[in-house]
Amino acid sequence: MNLDINQARLSAELAKLATFSEAPAPAVTRILYTKQDLEARAYFKGLCLEAGLELREDALGNTFVRWTGSDPDLPAVATGSHIDAIPHAGMYDGTVGVLGGLEAIRALKLAGFKPKRSIELILFTAEEPTRFGVGCLGSRVMSGVLDTNGLAKLKDSEGKTPDEARQEAGFSDNLADVRLTEGFYYAFVELHIEQMPQLEQKNIPIGMVTAIAAPATLHIALEGAGGHAGAVLMPERKDALVCGAEIAQTIESVALTTGSIDSVATVGIFDIHPRAVNSIPSKVFMTVDVRDTDLGRRDSMVEAIKDAVWTISAERKLKATVETLNADPPASCAREITEATELASREFGLRTLPMVSRAYHDALFMARICPTGMIFIPCKDGVSHRPDEYSKPEDIERGVKVLGSVLARLSQA
Amino acid sequence: MNLDINQARLSAELAKLATFSEAPAPAVTRILYTKQDLEARAYFKGLCLEAGLELREDALGNTFVRWTGSDPDLPAVATGSHIDAIPHAGMYDGTVGVLGGLEAIRALKLAGFKPKRSIELILFTAEEPTRFGVGCLGSRVMSGVLDTNGLAKLKDSEGKTPDEARQEAGFSDNLADVRLTEGFYYAFVELHIEQMPQLEQKNIPIGMVTAIAAPATLHIALEGAGGHAGAVLMPERKDALVCGAEIAQTIESVALTTGSIDSVATVGIFDIHPRAVNSIPSKVFMTVDVRDTDLGRRDSMVEAIKDAVWTISAERKLKATVETLNADPPASCAREITEATELASREFGLRTLPMVSRAYHDALFMARICPTGMIFIPCKDGVSHRPDEYSKPEDIERGVKVLGSVLARLSQA
Repeated sequence: MNLDINQARLSAELAKLATFSEAPAPAVTRILYTKQDLEARAYFKGLCLEAGLELREDALGNTFVRWTGSDPDLPAVATGSHIDAIPHAGMYDGTVGVLGGLEAIRALKLAGFKPKRSIELILFTAEEPTRFGVGCLGSRVMSGVLDTNGLAKLKDSEGKTPDEARQEAGFSDNLADVRLTEGFYYAFVELHIEQMPQLEQKNIPIGMVTAIAAPATLHIALEGAGGHAGAVLMPERKDALVCGAEIAQTIESVALTTGSIDSVATVGIFDIHPRAVNSIPSKVFMTVDVRDTDLGRRDSMVEAIKDAVWTISAERKLKATVETLNADPPASCAREITEATELASREFGLRTLPMVSRAYHDALFMARICPTGMIFIPCKDGVSHRPDEYSKPEDIERGVKVLGSVLARLSQA
Repeated sequence: MNLDINQARLSAELAKLATFSEAPAPAVTRILYTKQDLEARAYFKGLCLEAGLELREDALGNTFVRWTGSDPDLPAVATGSHIDAIPHAGMYDGTVGVLGGLEAIRALKLAGFKPKRSIELILFTAEEPTRFGVGCLGSRVMSGVLDTNGLAKLKDSEGKTPDEARQEAGFSDNLADVRLTEGFYYAFVELHIEQMPQLEQKNIPIGMVTAIAAPATLHIALEGAGGHAGAVLMPERKDALVCGAEIAQTIESVALTTGSIDSVATVGIFDIHPRAVNSIPSKVFMTVDVRDTDLGRRDSMVEAIKDAVWTISAERKLKATVETLNADPPASCAREITEATELASREFGLRTLPMVSRAYHDALFMARICPTGMIFIPCKDGVSHRPDEYSKPEDIERGVKVLGSVLARLSQA
């Protein structure tokens, strides 16, 4: 089946979506339920209605766009991604899977394709952890990994819960209905930029994801003793900053020495108190993001980091607390989807590279309730979460073509 | 001469002064030219007028309280300190030298003493670097170490210069007149809490300061590369936080290994960008406060820290800049003042401990224009710059007594 992708229209839609941002271009900042997030959603929903698709939103704002198949009672085939963006990020992370998914459906329609199973495009709420500290909020609740009790414990920086925030944003349905049962979908496949430079370096247009690494998130709090920067002698100090610095360095070492290139650990937040030129820092709060494709190795890293916190804080006579915010298992992709991706790519004469996703995605949680896969496309220098994040229009086009073909294949099964 | 110190009144005045604070008690926060600073100054000036003393303020708000001597043309003997307080500090740092200086003068008057040289009590503007990043703003300008051009380069967090800020606070005289000539004062002696635990541990009531350590302040900026915390592999990272952490640890090592207990170095501010859980920090801004009683050793530490910044940032392939904000030389105290302190203490049967001041004080800059000394009193556990900073009323009384006697001796010379 030939699929005619309207590359110019898709590029224009991606550019338009990027204008809904708190940060000035080329940076994109789009935080859950802000004015910019709601405007971007409205723009997306308008495009879907223009394409003649049906819309449904759940209580968290997860948005389901349905192209009804000839056998509408069969579980649908789903695709999708997210449109939220961390502070000072770029315009391709997530959005390529959302607007690209829409373009794939439009191209299938244009080609005269008639799906047996319905095809659904999902815009997931808050894949990024910016507002509530936990990634994949929408798919986490959808898959039952986070229930309403767990949701109620999350708070944003103003102390609001997700329930309060979503109601303010106008989502008033029953939260308990967000959860989908296992088997609700026949399959889920997500198109995404690689966020690594492998495809670009090897000049291969399609990444066929075989596994998705999962993060554990730790919150570390240190409490030492402050005091005057001139008067407290070095051996008598309980400097929380230097203690935190030693822990941050050890975290780097832990990730560097597992023996696997797949192990990563990042201190993304490091706040100190009282933060004055001539005052010894008495407190540190830091977050650690730990990931691996192998659950055992990931959890060994988490344990090694905790040990380092206890050892270093004890040596330096500081109080320490460690809280594990989340520790999700990695996911394996379904063989039927990697095979469909392989066949679809071959159909268009495109080479594929089997690879693991080191970033997590909504697919990680969709894998809990249905066979799941991911399709990656190259991005410049592997850069993501930065204003200079970039994927070429022709690379996006190839990804959308393969996605369309995969959706078509799965929808006939 | 017997000196009758009104300990109860002085304690009440210190407690009242502590109420002019942005932070709730027992913490004291009093930043230059804020409402709280101006109210505290008004309270102090009221007490001085009640005591029958003459007031003068300069263009920066340095306040001079004069008890005119029998030979008013002779250079006066001066004492004084500061009343500003860093965020979440305590109620004795500086204030004991200001209100204690006033009480010493009141006690001398009560005793019927008639000074030959005039005695002046100085409230120095902004000894703490909180607002403009540079400590001892008032005495620095008074002593000519900072001129009006240098002042104009300083900015607070809102971009205001000291000139703009002081005019808003109602100080409108000519800035050029703040500078005092060498010989303007016959001598300067500052009463202060020790900010170290030596006097308390040795149970000695009076510290006789022989030298004052001086700080160098460095601003370090690091720029690496950000990116997705899951996707950028460890060996490819240019993580500014881990680079800054390694530098912070090295700074601690530099101070610990000079061979002298007098060497201290502190990272007081450590800001990261973009500060998101799943984003690799691309930038760090940090301040370093480096002090020693020996200028050569202090400057060697500064050089070693700069070397560490260049080496570590080069190894990690980050860009680094280092700016030296100030690098003042330490000061030696004048023998005539240490001798007067010794004699005054003996007069009251109080033991003295010769010691160096590891914290800097306005005395560091007054030493540029006249013979200078300091008198220290014990403080609990050596704690300062914290809400639990504490000196016993009887220890304060002893210090005020010795100060009064020293002022009397110097005023007759």
